[in-house]
Amino acid sequence: MTTFSFLDDYSEGAHLDILSALTESNYVQQAPYGEDTYTAAATSRIKARLAANFDGAIHYVASGTMANIVSISSCLRPHEAVIAVSSGHIVVREAGAIEATGHKLITVPSVDGKLTPENIKVALSSNAHFPHMAKPRLIYISNATETGTVYTLAELRAISALAKQRGLILFLDGARLGAALASSKNDATLADIASLVDIFWIGGTKVGALLGEAIVICNPALKDDFAFHLKQRGGMLAKGRLLGIQFQALFGTRNLFLENAKHANAMAAKLAAGIVARGYTLDSETATNQVFPVLPDSVISTLQSYFSFYVWSNAGNDRSVIRLVTSWATNENQVDAFLARLPQH
Amino acid sequence: MTTFSFLDDYSEGAHLDILSALTESNYVQQAPYGEDTYTAAATSRIKARLAANFDGAIHYVASGTMANIVSISSCLRPHEAVIAVSSGHIVVREAGAIEATGHKLITVPSVDGKLTPENIKVALSSNAHFPHMAKPRLIYISNATETGTVYTLAELRAISALAKQRGLILFLDGARLGAALASSKNDATLADIASLVDIFWIGGTKVGALLGEAIVICNPALKDDFAFHLKQRGGMLAKGRLLGIQFQALFGTRNLFLENAKHANAMAAKLAAGIVARGYTLDSETATNQVFPVLPDSVISTLQSYFSFYVWSNAGNDRSVIRLVTSWATNENQVDAFLARLPQH
Amino acid sequence: MTTFSFLDDYSEGAHLDILSALTESNYVQQAPYGEDTYTAAATSRIKARLAANFDGAIHYVASGTMANIVSISSCLRPHEAVIAVSSGHIVVREAGAIEATGHKLITVPSVDGKLTPENIKVALSSNAHFPHMAKPRLIYISNATETGTVYTLAELRAISALAKQRGLILFLDGARLGAALASSKNDATLADIASLVDIFWIGGTKVGALLGEAIVICNPALKDDFAFHLKQRGGMLAKGRLLGIQFQALFGTRNLFLENAKHANAMAAKLAAGIVARGYTLDSETATNQVFPVLPDSVISTLQSYFSFYVWSNAGNDRSVIRLVTSWATNENQVDAFLARLPQH
Amino acid sequence: MTTFSFLDDYSEGAHLDILSALTESNYVQQAPYGEDTYTAAATSRIKARLAANFDGAIHYVASGTMANIVSISSCLRPHEAVIAVSSGHIVVREAGAIEATGHKLITVPSVDGKLTPENIKVALSSNAHFPHMAKPRLIYISNATETGTVYTLAELRAISALAKQRGLILFLDGARLGAALASSKNDATLADIASLVDIFWIGGTKVGALLGEAIVICNPALKDDFAFHLKQRGGMLAKGRLLGIQFQALFGTRNLFLENAKHANAMAAKLAAGIVARGYTLDSETATNQVFPVLPDSVISTLQSYFSFYVWSNAGNDRSVIRLVTSWATNENQVDAFLARLPQH
Repeated sequence: MTTFSFLDDYSEGAHLDILSALTESNYVQQAPYGEDTYTAAATSRIKARLAANFDGAIHYVASGTMANIVSISSCLRPHEAVIAVSSGHIVVREAGAIEATGHKLITVPSVDGKLTPENIKVALSSNAHFPHMAKPRLIYISNATETGTVYTLAELRAISALAKQRGLILFLDGARLGAALASSKNDATLADIASLVDIFWIGGTKVGALLGEAIVICNPALKDDFAFHLKQRGGMLAKGRLLGIQFQALFGTRNLFLENAKHANAMAAKLAAGIVARGYTLDSETATNQVFPVLPDSVISTLQSYFSFYVWSNAGNDRSVIRLVTSWATNENQVDAFLARLPQH
Repeated sequence: MTTFSFLDDYSEGAHLDILSALTESNYVQQAPYGEDTYTAAATSRIKARLAANFDGAIHYVASGTMANIVSISSCLRPHEAVIAVSSGHIVVREAGAIEATGHKLITVPSVDGKLTPENIKVALSSNAHFPHMAKPRLIYISNATETGTVYTLAELRAISALAKQRGLILFLDGARLGAALASSKNDATLADIASLVDIFWIGGTKVGALLGEAIVICNPALKDDFAFHLKQRGGMLAKGRLLGIQFQALFGTRNLFLENAKHANAMAAKLAAGIVARGYTLDSETATNQVFPVLPDSVISTLQSYFSFYVWSNAGNDRSVIRLVTSWATNENQVDAFLARLPQH
Repeated sequence: MTTFSFLDDYSEGAHLDILSALTESNYVQQAPYGEDTYTAAATSRIKARLAANFDGAIHYVASGTMANIVSISSCLRPHEAVIAVSSGHIVVREAGAIEATGHKLITVPSVDGKLTPENIKVALSSNAHFPHMAKPRLIYISNATETGTVYTLAELRAISALAKQRGLILFLDGARLGAALASSKNDATLADIASLVDIFWIGGTKVGALLGEAIVICNPALKDDFAFHLKQRGGMLAKGRLLGIQFQALFGTRNLFLENAKHANAMAAKLAAGIVARGYTLDSETATNQVFPVLPDSVISTLQSYFSFYVWSNAGNDRSVIRLVTSWATNENQVDAFLARLPQH
Repeated sequence: MTTFSFLDDYSEGAHLDILSALTESNYVQQAPYGEDTYTAAATSRIKARLAANFDGAIHYVASGTMANIVSISSCLRPHEAVIAVSSGHIVVREAGAIEATGHKLITVPSVDGKLTPENIKVALSSNAHFPHMAKPRLIYISNATETGTVYTLAELRAISALAKQRGLILFLDGARLGAALASSKNDATLADIASLVDIFWIGGTKVGALLGEAIVICNPALKDDFAFHLKQRGGMLAKGRLLGIQFQALFGTRNLFLENAKHANAMAAKLAAGIVARGYTLDSETATNQVFPVLPDSVISTLQSYFSFYVWSNAGNDRSVIRLVTSWATNENQVDAFLARLPQH
């Protein structure tokens, strides 16, 4: 018997619209390295969601770590440092990728996974003994965060205002941007984000692409020579079309990007509601596509025969927090099956 | 009217067998980051072409530059340098990617695009004033070379013997390894190469994959912790399956890897023969999938209305060298059409 | 009127014995780059303080940051990280120098400025999700610490044992090693330290040299090619003799190294005792050459007319902590003058 | 019997004026890290030799490699490359120090050790395939060159004009700048150089300092945050006074900087003249403090009993080129002794 996996949101291939687009375009000859017409079309479609006066640029890479590496290292001089929450993806999940480009990470605690203006100020004031301390220069946030929480528009505006006031670059890691924008907790648009940050990226991998992230450079001063950095870090694909075709599909009239994210969030919401209805608590609110129920270890043990998921942390009294991740590909039948296997508390 | 492109070997998507394999596997849930069963199968298939006592490891990345970055930087300490021909891909086509990881490139002239034991010795003797000079430690070669020439088995053995004698790591960039192995000039097998070098990679992008290169670590001492480097450089894909599925298809019973390369080489050979038959000369021998005819500029001008290709260099007397590249996707009709448009000299 | 400075321990030039040694040797022609006879003699003298079976090497550099850069970067592969306390010098006082060589710093809280086996274990267990997290590989400690505290021999042994058990390199920053060895809290010898760590350095700048730190490589496996790293990082002096002559003087029969450090510590102890005798408290114990009295702001204001020192932190109730640093050059008359200016509490 | 060394110009300690200045200032308390009054005075004295409208900054470091590392890496973004002659010091004598900061070196042949506008243009045109090639951005020259030749003012102006026209930074390595300015072949002043380049440094080590190089930032746009780079690369000395005191002495009313260099050049000229007078030829003209006579191997062998020098290259017919280097410390008696030991040809 096969188990169904709630381990992550990249267990399957791609949305069928993307596979179809790849097949249809397959024999059309195109220029390499992102100079193809599909990539140009994808860029037009994304720009259509941004402000009319958007004067930035969009580039595509194969992985989130690559998006972070190129975005950050292209912006900074060697002595400039990054401010991030201590649970930030670049801090704890990328094997030191940013430091490998030479830059220090200055970490501060998060509040619900999020960076706050107050903590940014703490980072600034405790890293001001120049030139003996690296110069804080770039603020790194991710939306949704590592724990699935979402920034409100007001929160983003506050950080953006502080960044401008202090001459800092604001960078948003959007590996989970689809999940954030599709969240009921969200009140920001893609255009809002593009107007508030200097550079951000839109994750494709977690919303149904085979791979691909779109880096949106909003601050025109950061556009120059960006392609060199892509090439130098190994992030430029010969068949750049592969990324363009997928983002063209994600940002088509159907708005697959948001649709896929909404499905994932809806599946998570259904799981969360069902779990609560069966008498269990959640360790944290379900804002996107991650659910953190607190379950008795005996129940967890039984569920593991049918479903894969991470046991996240010990909750005491023979109970644990587990993490369930849904995705664009999550079959609602499996959600129902999970809830059916979950006994009333 | 649409022109047909002989510009490069990555103008189209992927071989249909690869698209099919992606479609068939699409909803099978798999572990991420290369821990999937397709990648395991691809690795088994590649290992089956190597010596029975192969004790290395195989990893997959999205681009050739990434393959070079990770392969080289994982092997070297900071003060160690790379010996390469001055026309080497890492020297002139990767935007300083290797230097960006901190390593010096020591360049020597090539002979027919190839590195020779004599020139390696020159590099060693002129970089021996230690510790004022970086320490030569890794030999970089590519097969086929930047200009499409192919190393013979004897040449590879000579370089390998010198590397062992001098304690150097031998690394082979195989972006065009399919073209090399499919060449009539070739007398080496994949197993030969794996037994002679310390680390090499097999290019998938140029033989019909959407993207993907397989790094084969032959020297067991270089295996440790390789995955960290993949992750740190942004070269690890969440959906690693995308690379595994493609290499599984390329190295199946049909041997699509070699078949595709042979088709490309055959199309180049046909172009070359036809061009010579029409009374023109070639600037260099056609060993793989690149043809360098010398044509009158007036003829070139006419051909450009129907075909895309690079004008490579001026040949004097109102003539130029052009470069025609064929691929797994080159339609023989287009080769015929090209020759039909070429007037008798 | 000139004020006397208790700001730091590098406000003056060099001990006169060192200036004399420079003058006496001035016209003797010597080989450059540390190959001179003075450097050889300094190395012999330092080795004479270590275990008879010491099989390491000693190199000299101009600054503490250089000592840290070369020591750490020569030991590590790109994916390997450093464990340090969050108040560590490399963490907060070197402008990101270690990250600039590509390595992540993993920080944990200190206990009295010191790293503990417990906190090392925390760092290891929370950085074990490989290969997504950089691999902890080197433990960084300093003795004396940033706040002037001193490791006991038992503490050093416990960290060393853990390092060996977990396959970690133990590195000790000895910018203040003289102050530590001269402390009444110390029960370790230079030989003890050399037997417990893999690599450490002996600070010369703070004990009376014009400049200079001696890097002692204790683990023979770390010796290879060290000079390349010195050269590559800009740390090799043409007139290496300048460093050799000074360390030869510091480690002569007179043991100027320890004598100078003892004088600094004694001056600090006298200050501390006098301050306490006048009815004030100390914010922390005075183990080396730093004194942290808590004084009324009005008193501080008066003292500042005669002496320079840092106001370290606010202590509430119109009081502040100040920092007084003594050195090999501190004139006891100035200590007396300071105490004379300090009114009874 | 002791031999006298003509091996290099850093075999002795320091000019006595410098030792005196160190001794006199020894107990004066000063601010650390280059914020002392001696360093300020040195900077004033150097600025007094530059144009009145000089709006740059001057910083001091301990070694030439450090001066090159900090000067170059503070100017460049990661994808930017350096153009240099293949015999350039940073290319062949610094263990890959510049590449270790991430930057590619693009090398071209020299003409008499010098870079020419023509060869810079070759470098630019052959490195223009963007973004696949690193972007040439900084021109590296040294004066005097590695082989002791000197740029004329016209040559410097031509390179400077080209740099401005192409948007390139012009950087001059002045390890041997004293020798150049003191050369009979020179027609440029320090002010000329400062007006033509963006950044350069004045070598102190080779003209009688214990150590020390003064980096002069001429282009105000390159001044920002320079101190961070000094700190981060390990180039900032706690007792920065050590560098300030020496440059204050070198650039005092006596003009020790030029005086010392003139002595070295005069000694070389006397050696050269004497060697020619005895019937031997020189392999290249003696413009500064290096002499390259061609001598029979038997004569060389005899001379080696009395003098140390490098045998530079084989000249055929049982003859070799040797290199004799003179310095501020070269005793004229030893020059006479050398010539006395040289038989008439």
